Amino acid sequence: MTSFSRIGVIAWIRNQEVLETLEKLVAFLTRKGFPVMVERNTATFLKSQSGAWMELDDINADEIDLVIVVGGDGSMLSAIRALAGFDIPLLGVNRGRLGFLTDISPEQLENAIGRVLAGEYQSTARFLLEAQVWRGNIVAAGGKAAHDGVLHPGQSVRQMEFELYVDGQFVYSQHSDGLIMATPTGSTAYALSAGGPILQPHLDAIVLVPMNPHSLSSRPLVIDGSSQIEIRVGTRGVPHPTITCDGQREIGTDPDDVIRVSRMKRPVQLIHPVGHDFYHTCRSKLGWGSRLDSVHHENGSPGS
Amino acid sequence: MTSFSRIGVIAWIRNQEVLETLEKLVAFLTRKGFPVMVERNTATFLKSQSGAWMELDDINADEIDLVIVVGGDGSMLSAIRALAGFDIPLLGVNRGRLGFLTDISPEQLENAIGRVLAGEYQSTARFLLEAQVWRGNIVAAGGKAAHDGVLHPGQSVRQMEFELYVDGQFVYSQHSDGLIMATPTGSTAYALSAGGPILQPHLDAIVLVPMNPHSLSSRPLVIDGSSQIEIRVGTRGVPHPTITCDGQREIGTDPDDVIRVSRMKRPVQLIHPVGHDFYHTCRSKLGWGSRLDSVHHENGSPGS
Amino acid sequence: MTSFSRIGVIAWIRNQEVLETLEKLVAFLTRKGFPVMVERNTATFLKSQSGAWMELDDINADEIDLVIVVGGDGSMLSAIRALAGFDIPLLGVNRGRLGFLTDISPEQLENAIGRVLAGEYQSTARFLLEAQVWRGNIVAAGGKAAHDGVLHPGQSVRQMEFELYVDGQFVYSQHSDGLIMATPTGSTAYALSAGGPILQPHLDAIVLVPMNPHSLSSRPLVIDGSSQIEIRVGTRGVPHPTITCDGQREIGTDPDDVIRVSRMKRPVQLIHPVGHDFYHTCRSKLGWGSRLDSVHHENGSPGS
Amino acid sequence: MTSFSRIGVIAWIRNQEVLETLEKLVAFLTRKGFPVMVERNTATFLKSQSGAWMELDDINADEIDLVIVVGGDGSMLSAIRALAGFDIPLLGVNRGRLGFLTDISPEQLENAIGRVLAGEYQSTARFLLEAQVWRGNIVAAGGKAAHDGVLHPGQSVRQMEFELYVDGQFVYSQHSDGLIMATPTGSTAYALSAGGPILQPHLDAIVLVPMNPHSLSSRPLVIDGSSQIEIRVGTRGVPHPTITCDGQREIGTDPDDVIRVSRMKRPVQLIHPVGHDFYHTCRSKLGWGSRLDSVHHENGSPGS
Repeated sequence: MTSFSRIGVIAWIRNQEVLETLEKLVAFLTRKGFPVMVERNTATFLKSQSGAWMELDDINADEIDLVIVVGGDGSMLSAIRALAGFDIPLLGVNRGRLGFLTDISPEQLENAIGRVLAGEYQSTARFLLEAQVWRGNIVAAGGKAAHDGVLHPGQSVRQMEFELYVDGQFVYSQHSDGLIMATPTGSTAYALSAGGPILQPHLDAIVLVPMNPHSLSSRPLVIDGSSQIEIRVGTRGVPHPTITCDGQREIGTDPDDVIRVSRMKRPVQLIHPVGHDFYHTCRSKLGWGSRLDSVHHENGSPGS
Repeated sequence: MTSFSRIGVIAWIRNQEVLETLEKLVAFLTRKGFPVMVERNTATFLKSQSGAWMELDDINADEIDLVIVVGGDGSMLSAIRALAGFDIPLLGVNRGRLGFLTDISPEQLENAIGRVLAGEYQSTARFLLEAQVWRGNIVAAGGKAAHDGVLHPGQSVRQMEFELYVDGQFVYSQHSDGLIMATPTGSTAYALSAGGPILQPHLDAIVLVPMNPHSLSSRPLVIDGSSQIEIRVGTRGVPHPTITCDGQREIGTDPDDVIRVSRMKRPVQLIHPVGHDFYHTCRSKLGWGSRLDSVHHENGSPGS
Repeated sequence: MTSFSRIGVIAWIRNQEVLETLEKLVAFLTRKGFPVMVERNTATFLKSQSGAWMELDDINADEIDLVIVVGGDGSMLSAIRALAGFDIPLLGVNRGRLGFLTDISPEQLENAIGRVLAGEYQSTARFLLEAQVWRGNIVAAGGKAAHDGVLHPGQSVRQMEFELYVDGQFVYSQHSDGLIMATPTGSTAYALSAGGPILQPHLDAIVLVPMNPHSLSSRPLVIDGSSQIEIRVGTRGVPHPTITCDGQREIGTDPDDVIRVSRMKRPVQLIHPVGHDFYHTCRSKLGWGSRLDSVHHENGSPGS
Repeated sequence: MTSFSRIGVIAWIRNQEVLETLEKLVAFLTRKGFPVMVERNTATFLKSQSGAWMELDDINADEIDLVIVVGGDGSMLSAIRALAGFDIPLLGVNRGRLGFLTDISPEQLENAIGRVLAGEYQSTARFLLEAQVWRGNIVAAGGKAAHDGVLHPGQSVRQMEFELYVDGQFVYSQHSDGLIMATPTGSTAYALSAGGPILQPHLDAIVLVPMNPHSLSSRPLVIDGSSQIEIRVGTRGVPHPTITCDGQREIGTDPDDVIRVSRMKRPVQLIHPVGHDFYHTCRSKLGWGSRLDSVHHENGSPGS
């Protein structure tokens, strides 16, 4: 694996812990002699303002080899969306609680990041979804999502009706609170709360999860990652259906707009320390059971 | 598309309707001049015993271009398992009720089959699962499943404990009534009853659905179709866990056996009339909603 | 059973079918010599304006023995809330599609209503929920619900945190899209879509159904109908949580408000034709299975 | 509250921890001068065999004021069924892990039991279900359940068909793996795994939870505790359906048998230390959320 040298750093500073970890990270990188570019907003929080900084929009693969994000899964989502399409890998440092996207804890920071920068790491490609609102022949609005795009009535608890098409084929019409369209990365987040399955992170698939559907036979549907999703909203009662991306960005629509959602062409590379294990994160965060005493493991390692 | 000439015919005769449809089919094929081979058991039910017949085990791609199965989804499952690996496409004729696997109704029989034999058809590849019971270094037992392999305690309502590994990685231990491992084809069957998602038929994925798990955080998991699944059963309380394939075949296991499940290399081709539509079957069988009056469709066909 | 003589009539006129049924009903009642009071708004739609009318707010048990509601379950909900506490029984006439609350179809109208008015009927008591928003020591707002009171963030797809207390005991804190508090009558409506159980109509119980809870162990909870429910909303992120009653009325709240929900003292009596059967409605509307051929019924009627 | 003096003691000795706790309990009671009767089987495990013992079947309210059960929820279930109808309250001592039925831990044993025996306790009444298998006019078999009676095909993973009647009314026919009929006490056990709601312990209700039903619209149903449940099993394919009580006792049936399930007349009194809190147990065992920082609690205790 290649090693990284020019490091970008981003944090969404919401509390003292994040700031402390950020300071520790920048100090470590500087001490080790790595050229560090801190995102402009992030830089304003640092005690020492001497370092280099750059605008988030200017980050590009010619100048940066790796972006390290300090924060929780929410910060990582923002960074992934901001850097989608730029071919810069991302590494997440959490605030002390294991996240699905951030798997270096502040205590391990120096050791773990040192190894990653030296080329000891694993990498997983995560695709994003792109949502477009078509008004006649033009794209009136759009957005990206690393977790999920959620169609909903925009206001209040009010059910809506819509038609779903996949690759041009009519799937169903549905009367519900809306529809969650999630990537494998997002399958452990909101889609899971709504009754969706968990998708292996590298699976090339999208899961569509109805929200409180009126019909009891409306169930989660897992479709190919290459699918073209199209939604046409019934004009009765809900004038401005909305698409929310990653729970963070809202896109409004007009009646008769057509909503198209599909996988973005270029995935984002997430960097993990060697030994990263998705199922370990599931066991830790979801409480899945660990090894059993009542199983004999002596015959070599399982799976061998 | 190539046309078919040498036709094999199989039916599991459980009632008069199936027999009538079978007679009608054989008469039609004979009248049209197709060489017809009826499976031996099936042939014993026919009024005219003059035609050619062959043993189920002897059916092979050198002598047969297409096998037509008369019956319900259950018959089709038996035929798929029997012919797995032989590279002979399968066409299903139902007994009057639309099935997920059998989409030619007795009324349309002559018209629909005529067109298929003339080369007007669609084809979908469906993979099967293969389950193997490893006892030390030997495979003590095995089975194939087109829908699902279900691990369960074998008797009664008694929970079991087991460890799940995917591609050698430990996933979780689980205390439950068992585990359903389903193909996309099987995702609309038993796995759906147990709370699993629906998988697009052509998706290269397997869904693992826990049955009444003790922990509320055990949820359906969708993994890559190429995954090597391994299960190690806890020896406490359940001496002979069983794998049931497609609800039809049972494979017993011993304590300390290791159960391995994976996709079979060669899929089966299912033949459908042109215009076959998986979502139409879902709408028909699951009651999903049809097109909405409140959506404007005038701007060209959706998806275009 | 007592017979009814002075009849009130209400309809929410949304389409021609409702109006026709209303005209038919009023003509029938007048022809039969019953004193009829039409609700003022409803009366404006009638061709003949000669009859008596009264304000919805003035309807009371001294002047009216029975109110007949023409419309769907939504209209019935509005009527139940409007008449809650007045001790006037309600009878629902639907627009042609069986409802859970309206079980006389337009075709049966004259026959079925004739019998009911003559005293041949069944009656079921349905309780309502009352929601109150406490701001310090005063009730800042309130509302009634025959189906459900739904706590939600008021806008958009945004999760909220709240604490739940039942009869003064702390139950849990929850991070979710909100909480549905439903009566048995409402258990077949929105609460069912969100994964709640069905409660027998006469059960003295309330079901609390979490909406897309972050924790997978948050499950529907069925509590005594006499319970005092109290909710305290976390002030983080969601400044104005809202209670929606029966999907029709919204009550806004302020940070630090305390929401109290409990059963109203006086239930509403719903009148049904003799032979009314809740499970028949479930089988019809939810697609539950009917009698089996494979069960022997010859030994007397089941249950005997 | 009355105090207890004559104490019965039962344990199902499955491991050393249970035996140690039992010894500690008997020593404590003897030291305090309480007349102790140890159940015969339990007594055989005790080092000192000098004390009084009695057969489980001979335990009655004339000689015993309180039975203390040492073990987990499973032991408590056995004791509840054995003592049902005898009007002797039960107190559970667990092996170190909080149970829904056993809420005194070995560490608190002396203190907590001392207070209970002195009259400081809470009591909750738990009803049991009684299942009867009717063959013509006779009861061919029967059983009691404190948690649940589960109807299932008896062998293997094989679906069954049955009709359900409640109070003589036909509810539905169902094609499924079986039906769980649970008390409120059982609603946090197997019924919960199968998707049922949680019922407040004192609710007078029974929950019916379908197991992997073929139809997606078959949902948990909560009925009045006084309901007479009747099940008629379809004779196709499943010759000997079985009722399992509390996962511990099996009752076989013949084709054409009628299964009747109803609440037993006399509930069992469970004794708890003062401060016992069902929701605390839920939070501990199910991981429900605790109090929030973001809620202001200063205005007096919630619920006041």
